[in-house]
Amino acid sequence: MAYRNIPQGIVLGFTVLLTVSAGAADKAVKELAPKPSVGDVLKASKPADWRPLDADNTLYLDLPAGRVIIELAPRFAPNHVRNIKALAREHYYDGLAILRSQDNFVVQWGDPHEDDDKVRKVKDAKQTLPAEFTVPVANDKQFVRMRDVDGFAPQIGHSGGFPVGRDPKAGQTWLTHCYGMVGVARGNESDSGGGTSLYVVTGQAPRQLDRNITVVGRVVSGMPLLSTLPRGPAPMGFYDKPELQVPITAVKVAADVPEAERAHLEVLRTESPTYQAVLDAQRNRGGPWNKVSPNYLDLCNAQIPVREQKL
Amino acid sequence: MAYRNIPQGIVLGFTVLLTVSAGAADKAVKELAPKPSVGDVLKASKPADWRPLDADNTLYLDLPAGRVIIELAPRFAPNHVRNIKALAREHYYDGLAILRSQDNFVVQWGDPHEDDDKVRKVKDAKQTLPAEFTVPVANDKQFVRMRDVDGFAPQIGHSGGFPVGRDPKAGQTWLTHCYGMVGVARGNESDSGGGTSLYVVTGQAPRQLDRNITVVGRVVSGMPLLSTLPRGPAPMGFYDKPELQVPITAVKVAADVPEAERAHLEVLRTESPTYQAVLDAQRNRGGPWNKVSPNYLDLCNAQIPVREQKL
Repeated sequence: MAYRNIPQGIVLGFTVLLTVSAGAADKAVKELAPKPSVGDVLKASKPADWRPLDADNTLYLDLPAGRVIIELAPRFAPNHVRNIKALAREHYYDGLAILRSQDNFVVQWGDPHEDDDKVRKVKDAKQTLPAEFTVPVANDKQFVRMRDVDGFAPQIGHSGGFPVGRDPKAGQTWLTHCYGMVGVARGNESDSGGGTSLYVVTGQAPRQLDRNITVVGRVVSGMPLLSTLPRGPAPMGFYDKPELQVPITAVKVAADVPEAERAHLEVLRTESPTYQAVLDAQRNRGGPWNKVSPNYLDLCNAQIPVREQKL
Repeated sequence: MAYRNIPQGIVLGFTVLLTVSAGAADKAVKELAPKPSVGDVLKASKPADWRPLDADNTLYLDLPAGRVIIELAPRFAPNHVRNIKALAREHYYDGLAILRSQDNFVVQWGDPHEDDDKVRKVKDAKQTLPAEFTVPVANDKQFVRMRDVDGFAPQIGHSGGFPVGRDPKAGQTWLTHCYGMVGVARGNESDSGGGTSLYVVTGQAPRQLDRNITVVGRVVSGMPLLSTLPRGPAPMGFYDKPELQVPITAVKVAADVPEAERAHLEVLRTESPTYQAVLDAQRNRGGPWNKVSPNYLDLCNAQIPVREQKL
């Protein structure tokens, strides 16, 4: 499995991938020295830099076209994560549908009959829960700060494999709306969501949603199954006709799936020095392709590598 | 035509779009006051706030599934824009193909036979050109600065309908790699591109490409035709089998298309006070849905509204 979401240079075509430029030596413009790429850093990583997904906090969203794998973040939304797992275990989601795909924003699923008398009833899980928009910084022992400036949060970084914002004055930290992050749809009231409808970010990070909504995890595999869905024709990208909606085959907790049928993925530990090297490889890229380097990394461009476990 | 790329709240379902929350008055948490949304600001705009696309600097990328419309930026890349129009006029692109779709990054097109003896020959246009990565700030009279901090550029803002970065010390300004921006693929040498292969940003803004590549314009209509293309299975999202490639029917300069067959779009003037109000409506959104407001806007989340002209 290739590393996902690795930003690359824009090459002219196929062969340039394999060729090395010649004749740059006589250029007046100073070229950037070559340096290790993210791929190089990952190649040099040690097995201990990686951790397997925890099957009890991994969700499989099974669609007719394939499986989307979501890592849940119980440290940031304990009650919602518990409830989403309960919903999955009572088969609440099975047979529901993707209802919305808005270009450069989100894909969202839920009950197509939410507003009519065929609405699906929640059994033992909760319909709604108190908001978990932020958690106390004291709850987060895994924060590793990025030195890069951010307009949305006084501090940014990663915690246990997730991108986070942090406000030391307010004593709060929260998961940020980067590509692939999963959140809990709600109505106008903060406490009106509970996980019966979830969404995934598929566009330029809508960070204005940070601290306005409960974020519960991140897609670690299968993003293209969501990001390429046809955009819905109704306002906000809703599929206004049932035949446009994409049925959900099932949502399962990985721990409930027989071992042989599970995906075996591992995530680079964001607490590891290797991850710091991954960030640095993105802040400053080397030549010959790159000509100038920003010495900066946007939180939502900071990839969090995932790969298949070598079993 | 709906306004494009308008970030919205995440609502629970359909009816909430039309309902207003009740019972918030007794909440202990202070609610944000309602305020005009981007849609409200646009509704109150005047005809003079909008400018029609210049047909001589508008490109139609015709695919089997429909038309993508690109506004070219001759003030930022005069030679490349001229060359791309010359390529279109000699039918260079017609029958070529989209060769690459990399999730959360770019779509790219060009000649599938670039590396074999069936390569398409450029006639009167140029194969390559000197780079136009930046232009002198003196060349840009339309810059309107945003007050928001940015990690990639000392100053950011808009210029004539395009997002730009600017470095007053270096005396340079440049188009930035936001969603929908169009750039010129190149090899390792700065001067190795010319427009025979172009790409469009379809993911989280890869701003590390800024000043590393010539940017020539922005998609103003039809982004979903590109953003939903299947991701390519080969490294960097290339379609490694010809049957995966998406044929390009034609690329045309709008001015060469009969008036009756043209799209008639207009773009909100980024020099107008209305556009400043659009930015402010995104920096601080009102209640009842929003609970906290960042008082900040990321350059690449700042939408530049496009609509059909009322003829």
